[in-house]
Amino acid sequence: MVKAIVHISLKHGVLDPEGKAIQNALDNFGFQEIKEIRKGKFIEIMLNESDKSEAKDKVDKMCRKLLVNTVIENYKIEVVD
Amino acid sequence: MVKAIVHISLKHGVLDPEGKAIQNALDNFGFQEIKEIRKGKFIEIMLNESDKSEAKDKVDKMCRKLLVNTVIENYKIEVVD
Repeated sequence: MVKAIVHISLKHGVLDPEGKAIQNALDNFGFQEIKEIRKGKFIEIMLNESDKSEAKDKVDKMCRKLLVNTVIENYKIEVVD
Repeated sequence: MVKAIVHISLKHGVLDPEGKAIQNALDNFGFQEIKEIRKGKFIEIMLNESDKSEAKDKVDKMCRKLLVNTVIENYKIEVVD
């Protein structure tokens, strides 16, 4: 069993309205020292697979096939154990 | 300037319908070796603050005030630089 974590974030220059909304909300709560907020997501995948590098290859395929929009998003795969 | 990253995930035992939907979709694409998928989010915060521990305290306040639903979510704060 291998656990892989995929971190997906918007590419630089791509507008992040959700991050902006969080920043405005925090501003209203009195947190004025924030310069920028960007929101991303991560996906934890438990795989029935013993080989780490093979697991990483499979997760990379999943990312390109379904999980990530590579036009506007960057991703990073981390295989834990 | 300090960058803090807040990782927010659902607590164990809390249903994750989004993760389940991703798992079903990947299953339809032929990725059958997946045991479980959990989806989480992360928020990158750029703070006008020089002291790391003070920055962490502030971000912790933001989490409890707005960013995290502590009834169903866990969070972890990482201060980068």
